[in-house]
Amino acid sequence: MSTTTQPLAQFGVVGMGVMGQSLALNVADRGFRVAVWDIEPKRFEDLRHKGAPPSLQGHAALEDFVGALERPRRILMMVTAGAPVDSVMERLAPLLAPGDIVLDGGNSWFQDTRRREAAWKQKGLHFLGVGVSGGEEGARHGPSLMPGGPAEAYALVRPVLEAIAARSEEGVCVTHVGPDGAGHFVKMVHNGIEYADMQLLAETYDLLRRGLGMSADALAGLFEQWNQGIAESFLLETTIRVLRKKDAETGKPLVEQVLDKAGQKGTGKWTVQVALDLGVSVPSIAGALDARNLSSLKEERVAAGRVLAAPQGEALSAEEKANLAAWAHDALYAARVATYAQGLRLIQAASQEYKWNVSLSEMARIWRAGCIIRARLLTPLREAFEKTPDLKNLMVAEGLAPVLEKMAPAWRRTVGVATRLGIPVPVLGASLAYFDSYRSPELPQNLTQAQRDAFGAHTYQRRDRPDAGFIHSDWS
Amino acid sequence: MSTTTQPLAQFGVVGMGVMGQSLALNVADRGFRVAVWDIEPKRFEDLRHKGAPPSLQGHAALEDFVGALERPRRILMMVTAGAPVDSVMERLAPLLAPGDIVLDGGNSWFQDTRRREAAWKQKGLHFLGVGVSGGEEGARHGPSLMPGGPAEAYALVRPVLEAIAARSEEGVCVTHVGPDGAGHFVKMVHNGIEYADMQLLAETYDLLRRGLGMSADALAGLFEQWNQGIAESFLLETTIRVLRKKDAETGKPLVEQVLDKAGQKGTGKWTVQVALDLGVSVPSIAGALDARNLSSLKEERVAAGRVLAAPQGEALSAEEKANLAAWAHDALYAARVATYAQGLRLIQAASQEYKWNVSLSEMARIWRAGCIIRARLLTPLREAFEKTPDLKNLMVAEGLAPVLEKMAPAWRRTVGVATRLGIPVPVLGASLAYFDSYRSPELPQNLTQAQRDAFGAHTYQRRDRPDAGFIHSDWS
Repeated sequence: MSTTTQPLAQFGVVGMGVMGQSLALNVADRGFRVAVWDIEPKRFEDLRHKGAPPSLQGHAALEDFVGALERPRRILMMVTAGAPVDSVMERLAPLLAPGDIVLDGGNSWFQDTRRREAAWKQKGLHFLGVGVSGGEEGARHGPSLMPGGPAEAYALVRPVLEAIAARSEEGVCVTHVGPDGAGHFVKMVHNGIEYADMQLLAETYDLLRRGLGMSADALAGLFEQWNQGIAESFLLETTIRVLRKKDAETGKPLVEQVLDKAGQKGTGKWTVQVALDLGVSVPSIAGALDARNLSSLKEERVAAGRVLAAPQGEALSAEEKANLAAWAHDALYAARVATYAQGLRLIQAASQEYKWNVSLSEMARIWRAGCIIRARLLTPLREAFEKTPDLKNLMVAEGLAPVLEKMAPAWRRTVGVATRLGIPVPVLGASLAYFDSYRSPELPQNLTQAQRDAFGAHTYQRRDRPDAGFIHSDWS
Repeated sequence: MSTTTQPLAQFGVVGMGVMGQSLALNVADRGFRVAVWDIEPKRFEDLRHKGAPPSLQGHAALEDFVGALERPRRILMMVTAGAPVDSVMERLAPLLAPGDIVLDGGNSWFQDTRRREAAWKQKGLHFLGVGVSGGEEGARHGPSLMPGGPAEAYALVRPVLEAIAARSEEGVCVTHVGPDGAGHFVKMVHNGIEYADMQLLAETYDLLRRGLGMSADALAGLFEQWNQGIAESFLLETTIRVLRKKDAETGKPLVEQVLDKAGQKGTGKWTVQVALDLGVSVPSIAGALDARNLSSLKEERVAAGRVLAAPQGEALSAEEKANLAAWAHDALYAARVATYAQGLRLIQAASQEYKWNVSLSEMARIWRAGCIIRARLLTPLREAFEKTPDLKNLMVAEGLAPVLEKMAPAWRRTVGVATRLGIPVPVLGASLAYFDSYRSPELPQNLTQAQRDAFGAHTYQRRDRPDAGFIHSDWS
């Protein structure tokens, strides 16, 4: 398939999995000559079936692939995060020349990206860690891209990334996120928010299904109304699509035939772990991971359900029946705001820790299309951080605080009803507790500090003179 | 202070901080000859002030300290976790002889302990990682001890550890937890449970203080009643002590003069991080860490409180006023059961992962006295795991499930009232959501799986034939 008569390619892609293929085709569609390589050259045939133009050429040998690229070479790796990335980099490095640029488009751990970027800098090579969101469809026709690494290297790949990225009314969905691991960090948090937003939709579905007895079709109809308003989002739209789909075998809604066991991996887990390291609370994201873990214990849950009964004799009042759907809308939206607030705060903390200077308004802008968490909420979110770049928390933004305050009563009613009925809403509830904690001038950690001083002499600060330092009392 | 005319010491302690001093005095009190060393020999004077007998001898030179010990040497390190442990081990190793035993009594990360134990085995030396709980008081007069490492080494230190450990009606509060990092892992989870249990008390205090307007003295009186019953615990007792203490300056309850900012460190954070790695849900512990992190944002909370008001016009009904305190008792107890369930499940998962064969009934037994989380609950907990060593979850134990079921309505009312009043109870709420999720045969993760398949082709299992593997559908 390789040939020496071709002009040099302008962009290379390594790894012809679903995402690599889709991105290679996308780049080719934008008029760039593309070279691709995979350890399994037979995958190049898939590309032909998918309509790859002649300007996209596969190479069976990595040397030929590298040799077919104009310099400075621009190579996007789409290989599994972890050891495979290091392995491909080791094979590539000796074939490259100073100034060449390699982009890692996988879901790599941002500390790996920091290490790799620093190591390649020593060799005179550029390394960019690029978050890619939007799944196969996004990769093929316009993903949201979150590149991090040296600014001078970004400038050289920018024309290609801007050509392939999604577009919204607010611009093209790519920007230079920041140095070294900034792009992969932001993509990780994007995925953490995605976990929480999906869980919020699952809880809302469950509460209305079990609490109001709504059918999948009725729920789809309700969500279609919601999707016309401020709650509009890609995940809500996906939910509607899922609820409408019928099972070919039974004629029933297909979603009801799906086993209620979900897993969690990589980015979602890392989001919570690194948040703990940075001292940032992300209870909505943590709750979503827990919910997936608990869902995976299906057999245990069935057994536990025989021993621990659901609440008996709890019915909805007429007021609750009439209003629960409307309350749930507000709860979903408000909890989503709280979730984004946590994720953005985490990016802010990392940006300070690693001196990345990430612009949160730009993140909101590049998430506006192409990615999984795209939602109408991102517009007021962008406006909030444009106006106040160092805004401490999205929930107190001028454009959102009044909305949250207005929605809070419905949010409380929703969590209250679910709590009474025994329908678990861990993330709607954790998000509300986050909201209530953050807006509470007084919290009971004075007792915590006193306890710690009483049993462990850990010392405490006095409320009337906090600047006088830490003191110890005899509490006996 | 060192002398060559003394008979050899039977036990050595390195590190004369508060915990090291207390443990050294404790060992000496039990009739053992003790040698101690510290980088600051002047700390030996503290020991004399604290009444150290002549059988306890300090040595300014580490060589003299090691030389003063009978063989096989038994040396307990009480130094700060992390690099200081490695540093002391490097200094000690060349001075030791094969068969000597070093115990690390700090809050070390269990993976460090696994690494150290394996490395020292290569040198013919024994290394034990020992969880020590009980604070200064416990260390001095009887801690709960959680030693992990080689069984043959434990046998040699067992007489000393059993002599100094706390005692309950259920026996002496030490046992061989398991190999390598098992002891430090269990201590880490102990601390995670401690975080959550403290937060549950803080939330209960806050709800009754703000919801019912109870004074510190009234709360102390109520908690004294509770402490006579099944909710009895060291931390509840500490809470009473704290609530009763008056500020010398103002005459008001001292707890009300304490600033409501708490931090989190090491063990609590690790508990949540490793739980995520092992796929175990510990939402109550995670919620407690989040609550501390949010409390530390005092200035932000005060500012947010001006923008986001508390719920207006919410009052308690007569029924709520009359019953909230009783409901809160049940909520506290039930949430504590859920918290212990999470911690024990985490130990179980690690024990399987690392082949430690930890006995959970033994853990309950050695936590029964001496440690911070000692509580009456540990007796039914021990009984549950004695009867069913591989019990999947404490909440379904024969002795506890009926209690939880009976308390659940009060638990729901407590969380419901707090939610309505806007008093954050993140851990009471997260614990209830954990309970409700675990006892739900059906959870809404069928929607989650369908969404993932719809936007990312991640595949799903069918409910009617889960064993048929993962399938993909076209959801359009």
